[in-house]
Amino acid sequence: MIFNDELKDIVTYEGGKPIELVVREFGIEPKNVIKLASNENPNGVSPKVVEVVKNSAHLMSQYPDDSMYRLKNGLSKRFEVDTKNIIIGAGSDQVIEFAIRAKANRQKGILTAGVTFAMYEIYAKQIGAKVFKTPSNTHNLEEFYDIYQKNKDKISIIFLCLPNNPLGESLQTKEVYKFIREVDANTLIVIDGAYNEYASFKDKDYAINVKDLINTFSNVLYLGTFSKAYGLGGMRVGYGISNKFIIENLYKLRPPFNITTLSLEAAVEALKDKEFVKFSIQQNFSQMKKYENFAQRNKINFINSYTNFITLLFEEKFNSKEIANILLKKGIIVRDLTSYGLNAIRVTIGKPEQNDKFLEVFRSVL
Amino acid sequence: MIFNDELKDIVTYEGGKPIELVVREFGIEPKNVIKLASNENPNGVSPKVVEVVKNSAHLMSQYPDDSMYRLKNGLSKRFEVDTKNIIIGAGSDQVIEFAIRAKANRQKGILTAGVTFAMYEIYAKQIGAKVFKTPSNTHNLEEFYDIYQKNKDKISIIFLCLPNNPLGESLQTKEVYKFIREVDANTLIVIDGAYNEYASFKDKDYAINVKDLINTFSNVLYLGTFSKAYGLGGMRVGYGISNKFIIENLYKLRPPFNITTLSLEAAVEALKDKEFVKFSIQQNFSQMKKYENFAQRNKINFINSYTNFITLLFEEKFNSKEIANILLKKGIIVRDLTSYGLNAIRVTIGKPEQNDKFLEVFRSVL
Repeated sequence: MIFNDELKDIVTYEGGKPIELVVREFGIEPKNVIKLASNENPNGVSPKVVEVVKNSAHLMSQYPDDSMYRLKNGLSKRFEVDTKNIIIGAGSDQVIEFAIRAKANRQKGILTAGVTFAMYEIYAKQIGAKVFKTPSNTHNLEEFYDIYQKNKDKISIIFLCLPNNPLGESLQTKEVYKFIREVDANTLIVIDGAYNEYASFKDKDYAINVKDLINTFSNVLYLGTFSKAYGLGGMRVGYGISNKFIIENLYKLRPPFNITTLSLEAAVEALKDKEFVKFSIQQNFSQMKKYENFAQRNKINFINSYTNFITLLFEEKFNSKEIANILLKKGIIVRDLTSYGLNAIRVTIGKPEQNDKFLEVFRSVL
Repeated sequence: MIFNDELKDIVTYEGGKPIELVVREFGIEPKNVIKLASNENPNGVSPKVVEVVKNSAHLMSQYPDDSMYRLKNGLSKRFEVDTKNIIIGAGSDQVIEFAIRAKANRQKGILTAGVTFAMYEIYAKQIGAKVFKTPSNTHNLEEFYDIYQKNKDKISIIFLCLPNNPLGESLQTKEVYKFIREVDANTLIVIDGAYNEYASFKDKDYAINVKDLINTFSNVLYLGTFSKAYGLGGMRVGYGISNKFIIENLYKLRPPFNITTLSLEAAVEALKDKEFVKFSIQQNFSQMKKYENFAQRNKINFINSYTNFITLLFEEKFNSKEIANILLKKGIIVRDLTSYGLNAIRVTIGKPEQNDKFLEVFRSVL
C-alpha cells in the first residue's frame, strides 16, 4: 500500500508519560506518583465544574450542540468580541491544525521560534509545509523579521507562542504589535496564548487584549485554551479568536461535533469560576519562587517563566535525560527536553507539597 | 487574506439540530422535545458508564493516557486482534479523515455510494480530492466495480458504508469479500461498520468478522464506533482496525490526546456492558416493526434497515422538507434528506413511547 509522500518524513509523536504508565512500568503506587510533566493544573479542576459534569453524565449519548451556543457566548462576553469571531477546537491544537491546513502548503511554509510548541511543526509536516525556525531558541523578533524578509514568498504563517512552551519566556505586547505592523497583511500571525493568563498576571506589559488585537490587525489569530489555568487539560477544549473572514475560513476545516458533550458543559462552567483560576495562578507564582531560589542556590540556570512551568538548563556535567530517568524511577515525572536539542528539563509548578518533594528528590539527584 | 484553493469549494457542514436549539427557537419545553434525528441510542448510556464517569470527573484536568492502553486492550479482546492493529479516533469520523489525508490527494480521489455518510465527501473536498459516486443511491457493487475499473488511476480509496447511513441498507459479507478480491491491493477499501452491531444482530449473513477481514485482505480498514449501539454519541470515540502497516501510517496523522480523559473512561466501561448493548439492539428491531407496519398501512416506501433508523421515501404529493419542518414545530426532530437529493426523512428508532408519539403526530401530518 502506497501512502502520500508527506507521510514519509513524519515520525509519530510521543506525548508525556501518563501516571498510569509509570505505575505499570515501575510498580509505583498511583498516589506516590508526582506528575510535573504536562503543565496540567495541579489543583485539578474547579469543584463547580466537577459538579456540573457529574450532573450531565447521563447526556453522554447525545451529540453536543454543534453551534456551541453557550460556550461561544461565554467567550464572547469574556473577550468582548462577537461570537462570529470565535472558533472552538479540540484543544487549541486543533485550531493550529485548521490554520496550517487553511493557509500553508508545499510551497508556503511557517516560521517559528527555535524551540517552541511541537504541534506547529507536526501539523506543518503532515501537509509537507516547510518549517523555518529562528537561530535563537527563545523568541527573538529581530531574527523573526530577518528570516521573514528573506523568505517572504515562502512563509504564510508566523507562530508566536506567548508565553512560549516549553521554555517559558514571553514578549511585551508593545513589541509584538510593532512586529505585526512590519508583516504583510496576507501573512497570518498566530499568537498562541495558551499560557497567557499566567503572563497577564505576572506582568501587565505582557498581557494581550484580544479585542484590541483583532480590531487592530486583520491578519492575527489569537489562540486560547481551557487546558491550563482553567484546569481542563483532559477535556480538549481550546479556541481561536480572529476577524470573521478568517474564522469563516477555518470553520471550513472544522469537523462537526469536534468537542464532546461533557467538554462543552465543563468549559461553560469553568469560564464562570474565576476564583478557581485566580487562585491557581496566584499559587503558581508564589510556588515558582521556591524553584527559582533553589536554582539560584544550586547554580542551575533557568528561564524567567511567564507560565505554570519552569525550564531548568543544565551545564555539561549533568545530562537532562539521565536526570529525568532517575526522577521517573522515583515516581516523579518531568519533561526532558533532549528531543528539542536542549540539555534541560521542564518542570510543571505543582502543589506546595509536590514542589517540596520534587526539590528534595532533585537535590539528592544532583 | 488568501487561503488555500481547496477551501473555495467547501460549504460549512451543518449537523442535525440539537434539542437546545428547538427549545430556543420554538419555546418548547426540553422534556417535550423528541429527537429522532442523530441516531443516538434512545436508551442513553449504560448506567455503569455513567457511574464510572462520575467517579472519574475529578480527573478532567489530566491529559488522557495517549497510548490508550486499556481501551486498545478491550478492543483487542473483543475483536481478537493485536493492539497494534487498532487506532482510536475522535469518533470514527476522525479515522476517515486520517485515511483520506494519508491516501487521497488532488490526483487520487475516492469512490462512494450515491447517497452515503456525508463525511467522506467533506474530508475529500478539504484536500481537493475528487469524489466518484455510483449512480444508485444505495450500495450497488457492480456499479462500484464499473466506475473503479474505468477510473482506477484516479481512485485511491473505496468507501463501503455497511450498513449505509443515511439509507439503512447493507450488503452480505460474502458479496463484499468477492468485491474486495477484484480490487487492486494498492486501493484502500474502508468498511465503515458504525452500525454493524445492528446488522450482525438482524442477519448473520451481514455480520463482519473483523479479524478474518483484516487477515484475509491487506488493503482493508474497518471502522467502528461507540456512538451508536454503545450509547456514547456525545463522547466522540471511534476506532479503525487494519493491518499494522496501515495503522502505523494513519498514526502519523493522529494528533496526540485525540479523545478526552472521560471519553476514554467511558469507552473502556461501555465495552464491558454487553447487556446494555444487547438490550438496545433487541429493542431497536422490535420497535422498528411499528414503523414498518405503519409505512405499509399508509403506503409509504421505506428501505429495509439494518441500523437504528429507518428511511421513509415519499411520493411527489409529499415534500420531506415541509414534513420535517411541521414535525419540528411540534417538537419532533427528524432528519430531512433533501440535501442528499432525496424526498425522504430519516427517523431514528426511539424508545417505545417516543415511537408511538412520533407515529401519532406523523399520521396527523400526512
